[in-house]
Amino acid sequence: QCIIDNVVDLKVQSAISSIVSSTLAKAKLLCQDVSARGALVSCPAGYKPTGCACGMACGSWDIRSDSTCHCQCGGIDWTAARCCKIGLE
Amino acid sequence: QCIIDNVVDLKVQSAISSIVSSTLAKAKLLCQDVSARGALVSCPAGYKPTGCACGMACGSWDIRSDSTCHCQCGGIDWTAARCCKIGLE
Amino acid sequence: QCIIDNVVDLKVQSAISSIVSSTLAKAKLLCQDVSARGALVSCPAGYKPTGCACGMACGSWDIRSDSTCHCQCGGIDWTAARCCKIGLE
Repeated sequence: QCIIDNVVDLKVQSAISSIVSSTLAKAKLLCQDVSARGALVSCPAGYKPTGCACGMACGSWDIRSDSTCHCQCGGIDWTAARCCKIGLE
Repeated sequence: QCIIDNVVDLKVQSAISSIVSSTLAKAKLLCQDVSARGALVSCPAGYKPTGCACGMACGSWDIRSDSTCHCQCGGIDWTAARCCKIGLE
Repeated sequence: QCIIDNVVDLKVQSAISSIVSSTLAKAKLLCQDVSARGALVSCPAGYKPTGCACGMACGSWDIRSDSTCHCQCGGIDWTAARCCKIGLE
């Protein structure tokens, strides 16, 4: 008789836990910086801004459409975005 | 005879790799912005602040209790938090 | 006869989906703050900076080597980094 159920249960549980853990361990935060002249800069496709930096020592900013850093100070010269996503290393 | 072990090994490995990969590919950084009057603003439950912005061009801030943005400049008018979590899209 | 294929298929699919989902649900953004005197501060190994804060109200910063916050204003007194990674809670 093939005691399939038990064998499969055992093997499946063990194999899954092992593979899921090792795969998840490879999940990393992948980040890059982008900057541009002016008061706006967008993250590359697939990346989300996690913070923004501005020229002229300005720390007042907001994020538009979940993708673009906007520095609010008048006559801003440059804007930078820290852009991150989840990836496998 | 049921050569269960080999069959299961083969099927399990293949199935797991496929499902884990496709599931992980759906893991995204989900972010939102929150802002409030004054020098403090907290992220919604489940979200972590990844950066803060302050009124009055102020770039001096810290994060309290892993959940709240605090702008340090005197008489700050507004504070914003960029809040992110890992989610499945 | 052992109808292994179907049984395994069914059990594997179900078990994998369940374990992958519950494991992924434990994947969290783990963050911490580090700060130091001067214009530079690095995240601990395994963590990535998602944003930086500077003394003197300065909001102009950049990230070096994907690991170090650098505040650009002259004579900066302190620099802080918000550092995050993906982890299982």
